[in-house]
Amino acid sequence: MYTILVYDTAVERNAAVLRTCRKYLHHMQNSVFEGELSQAQIVYLESELRHHIDPDYDHILVYTFPPGTTPHRQAWGKPDDRPHNIL
Amino acid sequence: MYTILVYDTAVERNAAVLRTCRKYLHHMQNSVFEGELSQAQIVYLESELRHHIDPDYDHILVYTFPPGTTPHRQAWGKPDDRPHNIL
Repeated sequence: MYTILVYDTAVERNAAVLRTCRKYLHHMQNSVFEGELSQAQIVYLESELRHHIDPDYDHILVYTFPPGTTPHRQAWGKPDDRPHNIL
Repeated sequence: MYTILVYDTAVERNAAVLRTCRKYLHHMQNSVFEGELSQAQIVYLESELRHHIDPDYDHILVYTFPPGTTPHRQAWGKPDDRPHNIL
């Protein structure tokens, strides 16, 4: 499933969230990740991230799309949409 | 078209970007907007936002999906995924 993840977490937890997301998805912009994930991978990603975040403060949005869905992506402004390296 | 927009702009420009995006989309999380837009609305939104952003510093990602596509959205952490009011 095509997946877009956007995190909004406290600064002190950003590094752990970033490191975790990079194991599964492409880093597209500051707090935005995207990529293809299986349902099992989403479950693993969620459990790893819930280990790092404060559920009373941090907020992560995860959009998943039906198989075969590919978005059209535009970048307005500074061209920073190259997929960042994946660890 | 279903649209997800994520902005990464300098603090001093956030208010103008936020105000502009709210005219077109639902504010879901700190820098995330979503909603249904026509191609014409996307063109108008882009021209308005390009008026506010610094193309050498700010960065906006816009995902659009084929008509009829509806994502499954999950929120991990603080429940903050209620659509914020639209001006």
